[in-house]
Amino acid sequence: MRTIEVPPHEQIRPTNTVVVIGGGVIGRVTAWRAAQRGLAVTLVEPDPVTEPSGARASSTVAAGMLTPATEAVFGEEELMEFGVRSARLYDDFVTELQEAGGVDVGHRRTGTLLVAFDRDDLAVLTDLHTLQQRLGIATERLTSRECRRLEPTLAPGVRGGVLAPEDHSVDPRRLLLALARAGERAGVREITGHAEEVTSPGPDGARLGVRLADPPPPSTDASGAVSFILPADQVVLAAGCWGDRVKVPEPVVPPLRPVKGQLLRARVPAGEHPLVNRTVRGLVRGFPVYLVPRADGEVIVGATQEELGHDTSLTVGGLWQVLRDARELVPGVSELEITETCVGLRPGSPDNEPLLGPTRVPGLHLAAGHFRHGVLLAPVTGEVMAEALVTGALPPYARRFAADRWTWE
Amino acid sequence: MRTIEVPPHEQIRPTNTVVVIGGGVIGRVTAWRAAQRGLAVTLVEPDPVTEPSGARASSTVAAGMLTPATEAVFGEEELMEFGVRSARLYDDFVTELQEAGGVDVGHRRTGTLLVAFDRDDLAVLTDLHTLQQRLGIATERLTSRECRRLEPTLAPGVRGGVLAPEDHSVDPRRLLLALARAGERAGVREITGHAEEVTSPGPDGARLGVRLADPPPPSTDASGAVSFILPADQVVLAAGCWGDRVKVPEPVVPPLRPVKGQLLRARVPAGEHPLVNRTVRGLVRGFPVYLVPRADGEVIVGATQEELGHDTSLTVGGLWQVLRDARELVPGVSELEITETCVGLRPGSPDNEPLLGPTRVPGLHLAAGHFRHGVLLAPVTGEVMAEALVTGALPPYARRFAADRWTWE
Repeated sequence: MRTIEVPPHEQIRPTNTVVVIGGGVIGRVTAWRAAQRGLAVTLVEPDPVTEPSGARASSTVAAGMLTPATEAVFGEEELMEFGVRSARLYDDFVTELQEAGGVDVGHRRTGTLLVAFDRDDLAVLTDLHTLQQRLGIATERLTSRECRRLEPTLAPGVRGGVLAPEDHSVDPRRLLLALARAGERAGVREITGHAEEVTSPGPDGARLGVRLADPPPPSTDASGAVSFILPADQVVLAAGCWGDRVKVPEPVVPPLRPVKGQLLRARVPAGEHPLVNRTVRGLVRGFPVYLVPRADGEVIVGATQEELGHDTSLTVGGLWQVLRDARELVPGVSELEITETCVGLRPGSPDNEPLLGPTRVPGLHLAAGHFRHGVLLAPVTGEVMAEALVTGALPPYARRFAADRWTWE
Repeated sequence: MRTIEVPPHEQIRPTNTVVVIGGGVIGRVTAWRAAQRGLAVTLVEPDPVTEPSGARASSTVAAGMLTPATEAVFGEEELMEFGVRSARLYDDFVTELQEAGGVDVGHRRTGTLLVAFDRDDLAVLTDLHTLQQRLGIATERLTSRECRRLEPTLAPGVRGGVLAPEDHSVDPRRLLLALARAGERAGVREITGHAEEVTSPGPDGARLGVRLADPPPPSTDASGAVSFILPADQVVLAAGCWGDRVKVPEPVVPPLRPVKGQLLRARVPAGEHPLVNRTVRGLVRGFPVYLVPRADGEVIVGATQEELGHDTSLTVGGLWQVLRDARELVPGVSELEITETCVGLRPGSPDNEPLLGPTRVPGLHLAAGHFRHGVLLAPVTGEVMAEALVTGALPPYARRFAADRWTWE
């Protein structure tokens, strides 16, 4: 008997078409997972994933810390538990994704050391350790001497720290590339362009439509026709802090707060030892700072948190703050060669928690508002969104983050 | 009677051919002035002048201060007098060059304010003012209050200053472009390529030859033939701190010391007032720092002085030093948007003074070692070098800087 291979798009009923707006980590993990579940997925993104430095996705700027323990905040316990769930998925997620996408995503399983610079910083860190213990997260309180034994380049004045052995890191640019390749192999079609509006109904009797900005890419339609509005049964808005600029039939997208981050990429001079052996985070006079090392000698040093709207300018003050605090923590940072300066906008929702799944516009979903946690939450978001697209509902563990928890008139 | 216009190359005897190696400000001003004197000039430079950010000439990194008064140093009085001579040429030089090149070079005649941050800095500044007076340079000692009246954004802690009303500035990138255009219009032929060696004799019976690195640009020869070695009666080596890497018949080029400078280009946010009204230089705990404003809102903030060989990496420590001192002097610098970070190598001679004119290899000249003063010394260097190329000797006022004052075996 002869087996005929049928392309994924042909296997499914034509009503199962999904358009994902946004090609950051969240949009791409959603597209990949949805395609694996048999949906016909089209992803719309203006920037090619092969040139991350020119892309606007905050995923291309992110440091890639997978650090639910050292990110824990009082009052955000449920978000932290969601992060821990996603962190526990990461090993399998990376294995599957690297196999599917053929790209090493730079997963470093070397833990995170969080240190305090002065007495006040140490008090904050002690409170955090108490919270971690209450939440059952395995972390270890260390003296200054123990910190410096782990990371000899730390400033002698560092007061103490907490070791979070399960707080790892990935390289978000490689993650993005792997997700794009894996998506393509799973049948995701990609359109390079801007989505301007979600219409209801869509063209050709479809439930929804996604209108592309003029000029549209020619001949992107499967039939060969130039199409300005893509028909869709379901649409996922995953455009980060630009999501509220896409016009939708009803006001179901809350105002997403861009939280600007300025950081730099650097490397140790050729032939020298790595500056740090694991992710080192610090509180320096109340300012958070981090150094995330990569296998190739690159170190990400960041980052500011500024609420200035959609401003993406690199400023003297922002860069200075990062350099000042990083130098206080690890004086040897001065010897690093700067390879790139970056500015990104984290998408903050009104309550700083993600917005996932169905809205009150039938077929329109959100996957947005991941704020500082998009890379960490990628595996769980892929799982949750694929479930929502196939069944129409969020799994129970994600209902707290339902996109329709907010209403706007 | 009919007048026939003859191209400049045809008017001169074929023995008056000059090859200038290096397309920075010094090489280009030499080429332009030599062509004006009737010589057939070819300039060899690897980087196109229209893309300064990719070019290696330190001229594209320089801030463009024309500040002999505030650069005065004990023991370097003759160099300072040479600088004053060049500064006095600048008005006419700019007028002629802008006319000849058709490019506004951003000449700002608003003077320079030099300020001291602490008591020790003020003591240095007081000594400098004494030196300026002894040398007959018109500068004015100002109190802290007077400094802040001129520049209201100065930090209140500034101890005092010196106003040098004749210390101006130009935009070196525009200067370079104007020199390239003026040179072209005066008949300078430009070859995009690397010069590897000066040979003696040259090809086709010429006194000298300039061998181009492989692969040579095809069909650059006037006859249409591909030429690897350019014949020349005279050669000017004007390649900055790379000059000692060009092979020459005898060791007549001293070891040129690259002095690395890291700086940044920034601008005030759209719609805001300029940060400073004139060039502001400061001594901050012994470290020199400057802010050079341009008419379009750009501000150049620099610069480090590091002796690290030909290293051109941007470092955390270098950038941090510049930001730290600039912020101490003018706190509002924090609000600037960074548009570019730059690293350049100043060409320092063994005695920090320029090397001009004939060497003991007949026909081979140097125009090198201008260190921190290349832009300031451009007009006088053009005059001196053209004189040396036409007459074979330096004018009396430049003999102190004769290239053959050093001998090497």
